[in-house]
Amino acid sequence: MIYFEYMKAESELNPSGGISSPRGFRAGATSAGIKYGSQGALDLCMLHSEVPCTAAAMFTCNMVKAAPVILCQQRLKEGKISALVVNSGYANACTGKQGMADALEMTVLTAKHLGIVPEEVLVASTGVIGVPLPMERIRTGIPKVVLSADGGHDLARAIMTTDTVPKEVSVRASEATFTIGGVAKGSGMVHPDMATLLCFLTTDAKIETAFLKQALQEAVAVSFNMVSIDGDTSTNDMVLIMANGLAGGGVIMQGSREAEVFQQALNQACIFLARAIARDGEGSTRLLEVTVSGAASIADARLVARTIVSSPLVKAAVHGCDPNWGRILAAAGRSRAKLIPERLELSIGEICMVKNGCPVSFDEEQVVKSLGCDEVSIAVDLNVGSAEAIAWGCDLSEEYVTINSDYTT
Amino acid sequence: MIYFEYMKAESELNPSGGISSPRGFRAGATSAGIKYGSQGALDLCMLHSEVPCTAAAMFTCNMVKAAPVILCQQRLKEGKISALVVNSGYANACTGKQGMADALEMTVLTAKHLGIVPEEVLVASTGVIGVPLPMERIRTGIPKVVLSADGGHDLARAIMTTDTVPKEVSVRASEATFTIGGVAKGSGMVHPDMATLLCFLTTDAKIETAFLKQALQEAVAVSFNMVSIDGDTSTNDMVLIMANGLAGGGVIMQGSREAEVFQQALNQACIFLARAIARDGEGSTRLLEVTVSGAASIADARLVARTIVSSPLVKAAVHGCDPNWGRILAAAGRSRAKLIPERLELSIGEICMVKNGCPVSFDEEQVVKSLGCDEVSIAVDLNVGSAEAIAWGCDLSEEYVTINSDYTT
Repeated sequence: MIYFEYMKAESELNPSGGISSPRGFRAGATSAGIKYGSQGALDLCMLHSEVPCTAAAMFTCNMVKAAPVILCQQRLKEGKISALVVNSGYANACTGKQGMADALEMTVLTAKHLGIVPEEVLVASTGVIGVPLPMERIRTGIPKVVLSADGGHDLARAIMTTDTVPKEVSVRASEATFTIGGVAKGSGMVHPDMATLLCFLTTDAKIETAFLKQALQEAVAVSFNMVSIDGDTSTNDMVLIMANGLAGGGVIMQGSREAEVFQQALNQACIFLARAIARDGEGSTRLLEVTVSGAASIADARLVARTIVSSPLVKAAVHGCDPNWGRILAAAGRSRAKLIPERLELSIGEICMVKNGCPVSFDEEQVVKSLGCDEVSIAVDLNVGSAEAIAWGCDLSEEYVTINSDYTT
Repeated sequence: MIYFEYMKAESELNPSGGISSPRGFRAGATSAGIKYGSQGALDLCMLHSEVPCTAAAMFTCNMVKAAPVILCQQRLKEGKISALVVNSGYANACTGKQGMADALEMTVLTAKHLGIVPEEVLVASTGVIGVPLPMERIRTGIPKVVLSADGGHDLARAIMTTDTVPKEVSVRASEATFTIGGVAKGSGMVHPDMATLLCFLTTDAKIETAFLKQALQEAVAVSFNMVSIDGDTSTNDMVLIMANGLAGGGVIMQGSREAEVFQQALNQACIFLARAIARDGEGSTRLLEVTVSGAASIADARLVARTIVSSPLVKAAVHGCDPNWGRILAAAGRSRAKLIPERLELSIGEICMVKNGCPVSFDEEQVVKSLGCDEVSIAVDLNVGSAEAIAWGCDLSEEYVTINSDYTT
């Protein structure tokens, strides 16, 4: 329900679009034999823009950063970006000097393959931490990647690890000429603090760097930063946007009508991908959407929504369709947001269960039914202000434990 | 191993002691039929000191506080305490004005039963949130409680909810004449922020209130505040200590040799109980002990230790004996403590796996064996300072989810 409020926009969202939908972007992937125990799976991929792009990115705030994250941070300070190379299977994190040398070599090999300079190439890795990349396979794999205008779908598969489905989208603003494409991966170790998981966005809009950075920050704040699967923040989190300007028209400047349209379209794309990530959380059987209203500030609203959606006890109760609403209020209470217990209101689905901090009589069967839906909505009204936020997560199943108790062995 | 360092003290720890071990304390319990689906189980209990006690307590910092928590906070400001009444089954949280009236009535009935005034009685509840207490059963139950000098063991059973074993201890300082007794419960919704779960401590030492408060805070900081089972903080957390002075001797004042002996004995009792709680975490199959050394500050050491012990991915890996050490460094990295990735050292059991932030070759079979032990030790050296801390938790099993997905239904 709430979902559609985000989709009311003037823009057209295309779930079968992807990162190579905007003009001038091509992508491709190959199976280089990197991915642990997944013979024949795509695991090495590339994105290329036919002209250099204005780019902006947000990275993990984990102090332990993977080598590709450090390299991208450096390159983004230096100038325009034309390409990106990504492997799944190994994260190239906690791999020391060799890891940095390997990340660098990946960009050099990619630049050579594409006929550009290494400084225009970014790199990302995802998978097991602490194991050196199998560089022999990557060296053999990179020249085999064939780029095409619909190669974004292969790229979306190649960046998957424990993801069960690829996550991609494109958005076209009806009153503008530009398109935004996006792809993301993430299923576990998802609890973003600033940026998150891997997400790559492309657009053919022409945008000044300062506004592109700001627009990305705003979009991440309402999307990826509102998703939690397990409370763990990755060493490799990265959200990147590349804008090549091939849609023509003037440069989109902050404060303009075009900037508003662009922001809205970018938010749509990111929220679509964020929800897809939450829905595909490790072991997840349904999507959990927590709406908090009546907060004293946006920061408080986000804090409460994120705390509820992250609570293992709430998530386990949702999994079992157990209307144990006390756990939801307990999570709100420990969030450190300003609240007055006597004013709390709580609904699950359409059913109000708590008013003025006290339980009201409700149809338990209806609540159990709502908890069993493919999308479970929890709404908490703090009644102390007017700020709102929405967070997404998933239920906690036995399967989550099974997946994560033998990931490397 | 590390455990014994805490036990090197001059005090004698008795795992078969309990809350009624110190002089002048009696306890008892009855089965009042309160506890959900557990016919015949003890669920209502009482503690009484033959003389009024100096008391100190720490409570949950959850903004949503149970009625008994609020009542105890008021009573502790007013004067001496002689007794405590506790029920399990229902938490009396999110129960509005009726909840406060019920908590108050429990103290009135207990005072009448013991022949004291209600103002000297504290009350605690634990169990399902948001359901009014079954007061008829409590009214019938309270007069049936028979107190005795070894009734502490019954009390320890009566406060259990999802706990599988009672948790109690007594400590006797060899160079002093006093004894400390303690009992705790807690198995889920355990992630203390200040106080934690339910823990009641008694002593026959004579202690001034200011020092008693300070000693309790210090003991909680190194014990209950270093335990995490699932990251959720309860609405009912409470650690209480009552000192009746019947051991004789002078008043123990801050800064004295006796104060030091008392502090050490109290720390021992609390650490023993904290470890017992971690070991009995919902669905737990083993105890996880995380030691962090070389931190820039005690606060940083605690932060890193708590973040690692709380990480669902680390906990699931321990459950599956998966030597996926990258998750441990990733958790350290997201803790917000000061660290330099290139200096990190990591051992599991006796085996060093990471030096200078990079993996070293290790015997994987040995690590898998260490992860399968009843007590799993993880040690991280940050190598940026000299502060240390230890945190306790447990593995994350499928059973945790099973327990928590149908708690109320």
